[in-house]
Amino acid sequence: MRHFIEELEDLRKLLLEMAGLVELAVHESVVSLTDRDPERAQQVLVGEARINQMEIRIDELATRLLALHQPMAKDLRFLTAAIKINNDLERIGDLAVNIVERSLSLIGQPPVKPLIDIPRMAGLAESMVHRSLDSFVKGDAELARTVLLSDDAVDELKDLICRELVSFMERDPSTIARALDLILVTRNLERIADHATNIAEDVLFLVQGVDVRHHAEEQR
Amino acid sequence: MRHFIEELEDLRKLLLEMAGLVELAVHESVVSLTDRDPERAQQVLVGEARINQMEIRIDELATRLLALHQPMAKDLRFLTAAIKINNDLERIGDLAVNIVERSLSLIGQPPVKPLIDIPRMAGLAESMVHRSLDSFVKGDAELARTVLLSDDAVDELKDLICRELVSFMERDPSTIARALDLILVTRNLERIADHATNIAEDVLFLVQGVDVRHHAEEQR
Repeated sequence: MRHFIEELEDLRKLLLEMAGLVELAVHESVVSLTDRDPERAQQVLVGEARINQMEIRIDELATRLLALHQPMAKDLRFLTAAIKINNDLERIGDLAVNIVERSLSLIGQPPVKPLIDIPRMAGLAESMVHRSLDSFVKGDAELARTVLLSDDAVDELKDLICRELVSFMERDPSTIARALDLILVTRNLERIADHATNIAEDVLFLVQGVDVRHHAEEQR
Repeated sequence: MRHFIEELEDLRKLLLEMAGLVELAVHESVVSLTDRDPERAQQVLVGEARINQMEIRIDELATRLLALHQPMAKDLRFLTAAIKINNDLERIGDLAVNIVERSLSLIGQPPVKPLIDIPRMAGLAESMVHRSLDSFVKGDAELARTVLLSDDAVDELKDLICRELVSFMERDPSTIARALDLILVTRNLERIADHATNIAEDVLFLVQGVDVRHHAEEQR
């Protein structure tokens, strides 16, 4: 049996590796949409299997460490946070797949409009995922707080894009089905940002021992 | 310190109580929409605070039981499942709030159409939440499996409703914004069904020790 501290380090590395796969999936899903590239879309669909396998592997490792080492206090909180964060990452992977499904439907049809705000919103959501995991690995509460702040910017972009697309639909009803697909892409990006926010809230609880989940909501 | 078995029983009861609050929130959110009743909508918004408090309380109890009793095997799996299920229930509560926001926006405007399939879809999603928690408390794998089967029916209803609303939008562009709100309600119901499915998958893992998460997806 390896030393507990080494195994915690393995878990941290696995979570970072999983986060890397998930960030890539989000990025590629949006590039497949903006570049109208079905091959990239396909790569995200293929990559999902690996993300799912890693989720199970991380879950097993975290549960085994809980069972075998029966850790106290800080290590216990770290392991329960790891189980939650793993779950959030896997769901972000699912959301990238949802985006790819919309993308594949849109690639075969004429574009509604040039996509500028959706890639911006995606870039912000990706950065939130990246910072939330970085804050977890480094135990950096300040970095985690920046994720909570970005969530508002994502919501504003979502509202802006949605209003614009609705006015497109109203002016030209032939765009309705395609504009709706784009609106659903923004909803998936919003949910990705929500999962990053959940991860950041777990990090704040882990680092500071203070539960900010619903207080943070009230402050915003 | 109370006996471990009694405390596990407390945890089970708290989760059932939380599930009851969450099911009620989902139900009332959809009734506020179909009956155009802003007071019911308001009750869901008020009830959310209680759901959020219970999430924190259940999380603290489960983590404390992990730390103090350092359980092995089955009890350990039960506690990690409880932490995940608690998380899913809180998110279902958030989704009911999302539905209420759409409902409050729609109540002030003329109805697009009589709502028949949305309440049906909501009824199925509520039943999935109920059965998933029931299967957890009873350790009933057969009941958990019925939840997985219902998920397909929810997706079919969602596609049906969405196609119908898009054709409404195309025929009468003045309905676009309102029909879009209804489409977003169905997406929230779909996500509620997804969370119930996650809970049922956790129950199958807990009861049978077999991880069905991604195999189940492949079978479907």
